[in-house]
Amino acid sequence: MSYQLWYWPDIPGRGEFVRLYLEAAELDYEDMARVQGADALVEDLHARQGSRPFAPPYLVDGDNCIGQTALILTYLQDREGLGSGELETDLRLVQLQMDIADLVEEVHATHHPIAPHLYYADQMDAAYEKAHHFRENRLPKYLIHFDNALSTHGGPFLLGEQWSHVDTSLFQLMEGLDYAFPNLMSSLQGHFPHLEEVQSTVPEIEGVAAYLASERRIDFNQDGIFRFYEELDQQ
Amino acid sequence: MSYQLWYWPDIPGRGEFVRLYLEAAELDYEDMARVQGADALVEDLHARQGSRPFAPPYLVDGDNCIGQTALILTYLQDREGLGSGELETDLRLVQLQMDIADLVEEVHATHHPIAPHLYYADQMDAAYEKAHHFRENRLPKYLIHFDNALSTHGGPFLLGEQWSHVDTSLFQLMEGLDYAFPNLMSSLQGHFPHLEEVQSTVPEIEGVAAYLASERRIDFNQDGIFRFYEELDQQ
Repeated sequence: MSYQLWYWPDIPGRGEFVRLYLEAAELDYEDMARVQGADALVEDLHARQGSRPFAPPYLVDGDNCIGQTALILTYLQDREGLGSGELETDLRLVQLQMDIADLVEEVHATHHPIAPHLYYADQMDAAYEKAHHFRENRLPKYLIHFDNALSTHGGPFLLGEQWSHVDTSLFQLMEGLDYAFPNLMSSLQGHFPHLEEVQSTVPEIEGVAAYLASERRIDFNQDGIFRFYEELDQQ
Repeated sequence: MSYQLWYWPDIPGRGEFVRLYLEAAELDYEDMARVQGADALVEDLHARQGSRPFAPPYLVDGDNCIGQTALILTYLQDREGLGSGELETDLRLVQLQMDIADLVEEVHATHHPIAPHLYYADQMDAAYEKAHHFRENRLPKYLIHFDNALSTHGGPFLLGEQWSHVDTSLFQLMEGLDYAFPNLMSSLQGHFPHLEEVQSTVPEIEGVAAYLASERRIDFNQDGIFRFYEELDQQ
């Protein structure tokens, strides 16, 4: 039986971190809302009782319904036997995936610092300030953190020759940052060589290459988490 | 060998979610920075190479060093055989713990919407707006989510009679919200009966009762995540 992924159909967003891993591992899945639409997603989520996911993305695997991007990726890894086989190493993978989720939230907050349900135009002043501190302080701190982590096994991937969900997520993260902050990221070129290496190597994974060339890949756009607003990318 | 917990010594913060679980389960641990000070924490964190934690709290258990609150709690649960024994249920526990971590971040952002390293006084206007939307939209959405989750097994705890790390964390969350938003929380009294039940029952867990009566328990204060600013709690 194939996995069912539920996520908004028109943005890469958080769902793309799951899509990329499913595609890299060449796992069988249905991207439910891309067939049935966003209304079906809302309906499905609300029909779930008790400990349902707080928000998309979530993955349905038979009786299991799993929310939270980092948890979905860890679940898939364990279920498919794609972990490292060592507890200490697998813990590092989850931890880094949770760090990535935290950074993704901070990226979203650069254009929505006041409330996620308000328009950007209604929180532009705060966004301008927020993005300044994000570019100057927060993002470099995270990029140093991830680049250091990547440096421990000689590359190109976090664990060396074998890729993990952390690598596919770091690829997506770097692509998103290039889209949202082109000036900033171009000024940082050469500063984070391990991140650049993972960004250029992940597309060579067979499943990823096929995915990126397909219509299943959703381009970054102005409704997603990574958005380009010139005023938020000024040096 | 006892666990080593590293967290800022003067605030409950994210570390308190770990402390509460360690104490509820009556596990042996050293709260390192409360003995050695905050400088020792910074030094210890920076001395760790490679995939080190991005930020405190982190737990050291022999060769394992684990960051991210939800991951620490899951690690302790599995290591000590405190899980439910069922994958589907344990997945729900992690997922809810990650949802709690997301809400804790949103609570922090009510007083630090622009940047964590700036003073509150330098981001008061944005905080005022942020807190308004937090009180009106975000917090109720989370509280409904957690109250629904608690309703599935008949209480008082998430899984029924047996407490888990989700219960100790929901207790801490409710205590923190009562401290930070007393007006709001008093207006919500009776709306989330399962959350109120877990808040009043967790202190009866033997280890928690002993902890809350001890000097190890750190009171909420104006340097932590849950802070009381009258202007952020206006109805």
